[in-house]
Amino acid sequence: AASEPPSPAKPAADGEQAGGDLVVTSENHITTITFNRPAKKNAITTQMYRDIMLALQAASKDDSVLTVLTGNGDYYCSGNDLTNFTDIPPGGPEEKARTNAVLLREFVDYFIDFPKPLVAVVNGPAVGISVTILGLFDLVYASDRATFHTPFSPLGLSPEGCSSYTFPKMMGPSKAAEMLIFGRKLTAQEACAQGLVTEVFPDSTLQKEVWTRLRAYTKLPPNAVRTSREVMRSKGRERLHAVNAEECEALRQRWLSEECASAVLRFMSRKAKL
Amino acid sequence: AASEPPSPAKPAADGEQAGGDLVVTSENHITTITFNRPAKKNAITTQMYRDIMLALQAASKDDSVLTVLTGNGDYYCSGNDLTNFTDIPPGGPEEKARTNAVLLREFVDYFIDFPKPLVAVVNGPAVGISVTILGLFDLVYASDRATFHTPFSPLGLSPEGCSSYTFPKMMGPSKAAEMLIFGRKLTAQEACAQGLVTEVFPDSTLQKEVWTRLRAYTKLPPNAVRTSREVMRSKGRERLHAVNAEECEALRQRWLSEECASAVLRFMSRKAKL
Amino acid sequence: AASEPPSPAKPAADGEQAGGDLVVTSENHITTITFNRPAKKNAITTQMYRDIMLALQAASKDDSVLTVLTGNGDYYCSGNDLTNFTDIPPGGPEEKARTNAVLLREFVDYFIDFPKPLVAVVNGPAVGISVTILGLFDLVYASDRATFHTPFSPLGLSPEGCSSYTFPKMMGPSKAAEMLIFGRKLTAQEACAQGLVTEVFPDSTLQKEVWTRLRAYTKLPPNAVRTSREVMRSKGRERLHAVNAEECEALRQRWLSEECASAVLRFMSRKAKL
Repeated sequence: AASEPPSPAKPAADGEQAGGDLVVTSENHITTITFNRPAKKNAITTQMYRDIMLALQAASKDDSVLTVLTGNGDYYCSGNDLTNFTDIPPGGPEEKARTNAVLLREFVDYFIDFPKPLVAVVNGPAVGISVTILGLFDLVYASDRATFHTPFSPLGLSPEGCSSYTFPKMMGPSKAAEMLIFGRKLTAQEACAQGLVTEVFPDSTLQKEVWTRLRAYTKLPPNAVRTSREVMRSKGRERLHAVNAEECEALRQRWLSEECASAVLRFMSRKAKL
Repeated sequence: AASEPPSPAKPAADGEQAGGDLVVTSENHITTITFNRPAKKNAITTQMYRDIMLALQAASKDDSVLTVLTGNGDYYCSGNDLTNFTDIPPGGPEEKARTNAVLLREFVDYFIDFPKPLVAVVNGPAVGISVTILGLFDLVYASDRATFHTPFSPLGLSPEGCSSYTFPKMMGPSKAAEMLIFGRKLTAQEACAQGLVTEVFPDSTLQKEVWTRLRAYTKLPPNAVRTSREVMRSKGRERLHAVNAEECEALRQRWLSEECASAVLRFMSRKAKL
Repeated sequence: AASEPPSPAKPAADGEQAGGDLVVTSENHITTITFNRPAKKNAITTQMYRDIMLALQAASKDDSVLTVLTGNGDYYCSGNDLTNFTDIPPGGPEEKARTNAVLLREFVDYFIDFPKPLVAVVNGPAVGISVTILGLFDLVYASDRATFHTPFSPLGLSPEGCSSYTFPKMMGPSKAAEMLIFGRKLTAQEACAQGLVTEVFPDSTLQKEVWTRLRAYTKLPPNAVRTSREVMRSKGRERLHAVNAEECEALRQRWLSEECASAVLRFMSRKAKL
């Protein structure tokens, strides 16, 4: 049917660029990047960070008008796979922290600089980095099943994705602090009222309504869309890069902290006991 | 009765400064500028742009405390009269685009620099430039019949009135993008939830409630009002002028684009067929 | 019971640092500063300004994780005690205005620079300076009985506490203007919708719910909390100090104005007639 979403499980019309944990499809001038680790609640591995950057690079040059991120299964994305922090390289934890900070900074820079409208279709719970980068998106549509959770402090961590700047700007300092510092989880309706989500849809109609709307948006004059977006974004880009650099440096230090090591250990031992 | 609005159709107590498409009245320390082309949904002609600037100039110097913009009839204002773009001068489209950009920039500068509280009484649907400049107003009261629509992309255009800066700041980036890039029309309630409207009133009581409130506001100590407003505004004015200049330059180029020419042609041929 | 708030009326476990009009208690890693002039609706005297700064200074160095401001009785705080403006020193009104401006600037600077999360538990109506500084807090919990009122213009005054900057940023320019320039009083629900309040609780459960939540927050890894907060705040601090200085200078002039003198006289003569 015309209003069905592109199915990320099967090869797409214009060609599939990556399989496995990340599926990229292109159809009707929309490139869709799908988190595809449903058994792991779509947690992002180091490899997936790299694959998302490759997918964004390709999408910036293909004939698509919109780029969509979404998740396969119950979750949108549960954030970082914590195993990203546990396999220590020969250079030791310092090297690990440095490498991760460089990777994260490059990853977020891709979203800051991406030249086409970025759309998140948040099909279920979103956690961590998958929430914080939403402040860099052009459209955020969410299922009423979605939640938005950034539990940095319990893990000994601090916010990324420019959220330390975009969230207070968007929702005021005290709602941003309760979310980013104290880890309060938002419902989809709360996230919408606070400007993080553009619109909430009943889970049963999310796919139909969103994809119909997005296809209509692809019909708009492309240069006007590009100009409008550039006029809106150009002013803030330099500031976002500075914020990203500052957040990644703070995180690099956090990853080497006692608090963070203990939190990861607790997490791993809980896992081992299961 | 004491709670009736100044009637823009008849000459005002303190003198009417412009007739026809724009009516200016002054009463009870409130100067009211009324869009008065109800048969054309209060679309703004080039002449009206000039007359609004003259009216603002006069209002900045008269003994009024508040300056109100409102519309006569069903609409608040349907935005630019598209015939503004179709009568090409001897210098050709380039000259036309240049002249329009200069006029628009000067017009928006008047709102940025206006020294008294600016109030919009949005009596019905608002479109385009009449929506985007609301981010520069001090008070925006709307009928529950009002809607807020900025269909720039379908016309090959990009946003003005500093909205590319004021809207994301006010409602977050993704709600601003859906409105300014993708042309989503807001209800009065949505516009209020997103900070664009101060308060929504039932259409039947809008006039009575708003004018009663505004008359009370004119009784406040005028120097305190002026100081408070200046403390709030002085910080952002330079930035707003830079944004305005950037938006007008982007629009000058848009007006010369194929996309914009096609959109205006479609519009004119639809009109010719009626 | 475990979920009871620290009782500000009796000496606290870790020692009480100030009695009388301001009560400071420290318990469970939470330092609580309580406005304690219920017969005067917790209006702030010049002495209380000084005591609050001393209490903040002590709280920044004690072993507490959170610092809470709240009020004893029906009111949270009714703002400045107007007698602050009526006892004129030998140096005359100019000296008085200068001294008050220096005190206010120092007071607000304490909130801008405070190194730990600041929490307001707004137990009832809040007025003036007790409202404006909320834009500098990390968490603002309010009873559904609370209201938020900044009647500066009727008193010939202009806004402080950085509200001329934080409020428009948080709620958009026109909602901020109606509040700060035109003195519109907000309900707790309105203040929450506009980002000034983090969450509203029924008055009957406010204390239980808030203190349970705050105690949970004290259990979070302290360095992560500190880093997250610093990443969020460091960017804006310089700007806030500049805004504070500008607002205090505007107020110094306002305090010497005819409008302000008349308003204080009206207030004193109304009081004398009672």
